[in-house]
Amino acid sequence: MSISAIEELAKSQLPEAQWEWVVGAAEHGRTFRRNIRQFSEFGLRPAVLAGITTPSLKSNWQGTEVASPLVAAPIGHLTQFHESGELGVMEACRDTGTHCVVSMHTRRNLELLSETAGSAGWSYQVYLYSSPDVVAQQIDRAVQLGATSIIVTVDSCHRSPSFGRQRLAWDARKLGQRDEVELPESRDDRVWTWQMLEQLIRRLRIPIVVKGIQFAQDALRARDAGAQAIWLSNHGGRITETDQSLLREIAGVRALVGPETTMIVDGGFRTGSDIAKALLLGASHIALGRPLIYGLVKNGGSGVAEILEIANRELALVLGSLGISDVRNAPKHGAQIFELPNAAAHIGD
Amino acid sequence: MSISAIEELAKSQLPEAQWEWVVGAAEHGRTFRRNIRQFSEFGLRPAVLAGITTPSLKSNWQGTEVASPLVAAPIGHLTQFHESGELGVMEACRDTGTHCVVSMHTRRNLELLSETAGSAGWSYQVYLYSSPDVVAQQIDRAVQLGATSIIVTVDSCHRSPSFGRQRLAWDARKLGQRDEVELPESRDDRVWTWQMLEQLIRRLRIPIVVKGIQFAQDALRARDAGAQAIWLSNHGGRITETDQSLLREIAGVRALVGPETTMIVDGGFRTGSDIAKALLLGASHIALGRPLIYGLVKNGGSGVAEILEIANRELALVLGSLGISDVRNAPKHGAQIFELPNAAAHIGD
Amino acid sequence: MSISAIEELAKSQLPEAQWEWVVGAAEHGRTFRRNIRQFSEFGLRPAVLAGITTPSLKSNWQGTEVASPLVAAPIGHLTQFHESGELGVMEACRDTGTHCVVSMHTRRNLELLSETAGSAGWSYQVYLYSSPDVVAQQIDRAVQLGATSIIVTVDSCHRSPSFGRQRLAWDARKLGQRDEVELPESRDDRVWTWQMLEQLIRRLRIPIVVKGIQFAQDALRARDAGAQAIWLSNHGGRITETDQSLLREIAGVRALVGPETTMIVDGGFRTGSDIAKALLLGASHIALGRPLIYGLVKNGGSGVAEILEIANRELALVLGSLGISDVRNAPKHGAQIFELPNAAAHIGD
Amino acid sequence: MSISAIEELAKSQLPEAQWEWVVGAAEHGRTFRRNIRQFSEFGLRPAVLAGITTPSLKSNWQGTEVASPLVAAPIGHLTQFHESGELGVMEACRDTGTHCVVSMHTRRNLELLSETAGSAGWSYQVYLYSSPDVVAQQIDRAVQLGATSIIVTVDSCHRSPSFGRQRLAWDARKLGQRDEVELPESRDDRVWTWQMLEQLIRRLRIPIVVKGIQFAQDALRARDAGAQAIWLSNHGGRITETDQSLLREIAGVRALVGPETTMIVDGGFRTGSDIAKALLLGASHIALGRPLIYGLVKNGGSGVAEILEIANRELALVLGSLGISDVRNAPKHGAQIFELPNAAAHIGD
Repeated sequence: MSISAIEELAKSQLPEAQWEWVVGAAEHGRTFRRNIRQFSEFGLRPAVLAGITTPSLKSNWQGTEVASPLVAAPIGHLTQFHESGELGVMEACRDTGTHCVVSMHTRRNLELLSETAGSAGWSYQVYLYSSPDVVAQQIDRAVQLGATSIIVTVDSCHRSPSFGRQRLAWDARKLGQRDEVELPESRDDRVWTWQMLEQLIRRLRIPIVVKGIQFAQDALRARDAGAQAIWLSNHGGRITETDQSLLREIAGVRALVGPETTMIVDGGFRTGSDIAKALLLGASHIALGRPLIYGLVKNGGSGVAEILEIANRELALVLGSLGISDVRNAPKHGAQIFELPNAAAHIGD
Repeated sequence: MSISAIEELAKSQLPEAQWEWVVGAAEHGRTFRRNIRQFSEFGLRPAVLAGITTPSLKSNWQGTEVASPLVAAPIGHLTQFHESGELGVMEACRDTGTHCVVSMHTRRNLELLSETAGSAGWSYQVYLYSSPDVVAQQIDRAVQLGATSIIVTVDSCHRSPSFGRQRLAWDARKLGQRDEVELPESRDDRVWTWQMLEQLIRRLRIPIVVKGIQFAQDALRARDAGAQAIWLSNHGGRITETDQSLLREIAGVRALVGPETTMIVDGGFRTGSDIAKALLLGASHIALGRPLIYGLVKNGGSGVAEILEIANRELALVLGSLGISDVRNAPKHGAQIFELPNAAAHIGD
Repeated sequence: MSISAIEELAKSQLPEAQWEWVVGAAEHGRTFRRNIRQFSEFGLRPAVLAGITTPSLKSNWQGTEVASPLVAAPIGHLTQFHESGELGVMEACRDTGTHCVVSMHTRRNLELLSETAGSAGWSYQVYLYSSPDVVAQQIDRAVQLGATSIIVTVDSCHRSPSFGRQRLAWDARKLGQRDEVELPESRDDRVWTWQMLEQLIRRLRIPIVVKGIQFAQDALRARDAGAQAIWLSNHGGRITETDQSLLREIAGVRALVGPETTMIVDGGFRTGSDIAKALLLGASHIALGRPLIYGLVKNGGSGVAEILEIANRELALVLGSLGISDVRNAPKHGAQIFELPNAAAHIGD
Repeated sequence: MSISAIEELAKSQLPEAQWEWVVGAAEHGRTFRRNIRQFSEFGLRPAVLAGITTPSLKSNWQGTEVASPLVAAPIGHLTQFHESGELGVMEACRDTGTHCVVSMHTRRNLELLSETAGSAGWSYQVYLYSSPDVVAQQIDRAVQLGATSIIVTVDSCHRSPSFGRQRLAWDARKLGQRDEVELPESRDDRVWTWQMLEQLIRRLRIPIVVKGIQFAQDALRARDAGAQAIWLSNHGGRITETDQSLLREIAGVRALVGPETTMIVDGGFRTGSDIAKALLLGASHIALGRPLIYGLVKNGGSGVAEILEIANRELALVLGSLGISDVRNAPKHGAQIFELPNAAAHIGD
């Protein structure tokens, strides 16, 4: 089965308004749909007779060996899709050696999740909703529970409406069980500046990943502020109708920040070739977001594990066809990817 | 609700021929449809952690402070959509601090409209249907009633047929109430030249905006003729099947006329990201045309106010996501907009 | 009414196989459809306040004044669409001051047609089916009857099958009345070379137009062989699936042959803006082909005249909006046409 | 009848899952569909009056004269489509003077096939499933039976799943008769390297063609390893979702390997213009794959011969329209092909 087939299955099982909650994105949703389509705008040139039996997917997340460059992206409110919710995702990550990023909006208790984590470790994602002190407290709790890095999401404080979700209202906060503590009330994320983030990073003793970079200059600012890694993301197209393809930005950001900076990319990845394309362009890790929901809907944690296994299996096949024996060498194969001048010829595919 | 949703609502409430009167455009209507689609040909690059709570939309119309860069474009024959007609639009502008351009084809009495105008002021739009003397008289009347600038529409004297409207005839002149005086009979707009306009401008003591510029050289001619501002417009695609995207012309015209010349742009704007894109490219003001009709059909003047509020609210969110705290700084953020090489990949969106 | 509307009407009145005979083209017919679509790949920039009341369409066909740059393209076998057949077309040309090119495959008698011709004159089109002597005899007959130029069609001796017409057979030769003499039997057009054509041209004392040029170098060869004019045409897409847009070739051919060589272009013209675009790019005359059939089906010669009048009327409006007072000045307005980088965004229009 | 019409016929006669086996390709199948569409991304410029009666299609396969540049691509498991299977293909090749490449997965006995071969000869295709010794034995048997060259397919050892075939399972190995011996069990194709292939080539005394090249550097490696010819192929899009158009790679590979190296291309060829385009870009031979199946389904070996005759007939017409009298001169006509900037305008065609 493919991730797209599991997506179709999930769509058929959810109420229309809940499905719209999943796929609803900023304004008309073009950016969300472009996330999916952008992969057909790049072509691959396979290389043969490289003598590769099984390409190695082993990667490194902030010093910890992980099974593959895949990462579970942070998604909250997951108990509305399956009673296991975020725990199912953590179990799937444990079982597949995948690094798991737990959302600040997790419904399942952080203590429980931390006990479930496997050798690939887990990270905690925070929004900057509150004062630096409160944010630091939230981070401290996660660090004490074993989070090996902190993902700071910085892209969401000016969120455009989704026209699709305006039509079909769905309040995710009211559905599903919760055994995690409630979040603090205040939501002051708009006041945050690069300077405030820099101060926060200096105060903490844990690697910080800045998630939600879409502008090359912001990647430099993040690095200068002390971030260990940069996460390119348009938040699944949910914040602003940018019409931008982040896949097209990877090479430019990589050139700007140099080969040593860790770069995570998310948005629209569904197949092995999708993932391989981003890696060849210079991404270090690929995060899967909505596909985790599709897996949960299908079969709880086992469904999520199935999603991760499919992605890893397909990725290995594409890497093999490209003559890449170790995923860490992907950036050296830049001559095997190119932007298509006639990409639009793929419309409808 | 989005402007597009209100558009759908209006479409469902109007007879087909009247709807065709609204959207019918030159020849096959490709230019009209491109006005809508052109925004997906430009991508935005959001900037984060700028510490912006609420972006300021405050702008300046010919020396008067207005609530936002939005302007109500001149549309006549509005009482066919709601009994309040142009008065509803004026009330909405007053209530939202929007500058209102009253069409020479207004059905509602100019004295009444001028009494209703708010602090953002109003302008009067004329076609050059008659001799310079008659046109000057019409302008004088508006100036005496308080119009702060005059919009001279220059694009309409060679109007191609709309194939859609050829199929479904609709005579807007026969519908709706009229309490404004009738226009003079003569229609000699084809004889007008740049020289005649220059003489008219010299004779008048009020800022003149030339509306209907589509060719960069004409922007220079308008400035040389004494115009205070340039209005880029293809008249909603209603005059000529140009297949041109005016959004693509903004930067070139801006480079030619320099940063000080006021530039208004209309055509196809429906969302916050649409408006933000034109501002980043160099537009000073954005005029909404057909959306005013959709608001009128929904709920008279309150519907128009709803349209303007939606546009302002969405614009503020997009500006915030771009790290722009004051809309007047938008032109400095040129690195955050770019033309998409694969725009066609958006077709169908 | 628009030409496209009359096209729809004709389609609804003809048997499916006969319609396929009209629109069926080489292989999958992409080139035929591109002939229609190519116009949306070029944008126009209108120019205002030029003081033009009615643009002059008057043109010159080989020294004879004609009402407009439009020419009736040669089409044979027309009595299957209306009993008047080619006579209807000639009457329409006479009544509208249009130069008429009579096909060698005319069903109506050449003597009758020549008597009907008006002041705009007529030309005779030949295929090189036979030996130079026989071709010269055919030309001589037409010249004696008053043809003012001869169109030699050179593109048809290697005609690819139309997959559409393979499905729906229609033998045009068996339908409709004939009062013209039969053509000679032999069909040796493949043996003809540029050298043979040059010898034929030297032998004749009448302007020769070479029709069916699609390659810039062939335009030079035609000029060198003594042709007075070059007719760019892909024969309505009927011969070879080239996927080429001839509109894109006009400027290159014009640059190669210089401003003095007469250039006719046909293929896909349906609206005033279509025609204006080709003229701005450098064409001297535009020939209408299939639209003549649509007019015949609607209403015989009167229908054809309606087609020509629509095209002239729409053309004048577009020229006026471009600030062009005389169609002969169109080539000087090259800055007002440009190729769209995102033309595909028009698909579906 | 056209090849596409026979394709439609075959589709209507096969069970859905078997049809999916035929057209099912890697991941979403975009690459397979692009194989078909890529031809509309290149335009042709016909040349007239070249005095060509019938273009010569005669070509040369490794020293043997063949009727045309067409080659029958290797396809196995053919008895599921018609009882004659690979024998039908061989008979069609014999009857049309086409060189036939027999798949290692042939169901029909190699001795029988070799006895049937005509003057255009046949080749044998192998996968590198086994140790060099076993592969050499397989090749030896074919050589002893009269194969004039060996095609080594190198692209298939990392095959991505087909999402279409995941939905509709079809086990081709269980259908149709077999009178050929079974293949060896071991499948070690992933261990093969360029060095191993070079050693194998040195050991053999027969021309070797490397099939499955998609990367220009691999074409050089193949030549350096001793290959006599290079076969550009993405295996009908069945291995990896590359989104690449191999048609766009031909000119680059030709420039790299020089004019003397034989280059075969397959993938998506259905019409005369498709084939002509690849030849103008620099291909030496065009291989037909799936169309052979369509012919078999329609009418066994006679159907395959019909496919080959259609392709040859259409090719001759397109070459004639391009002014090419001998297919071997096609590469000299490079000015008559060009990449379309607006290819996407063809979508839907």
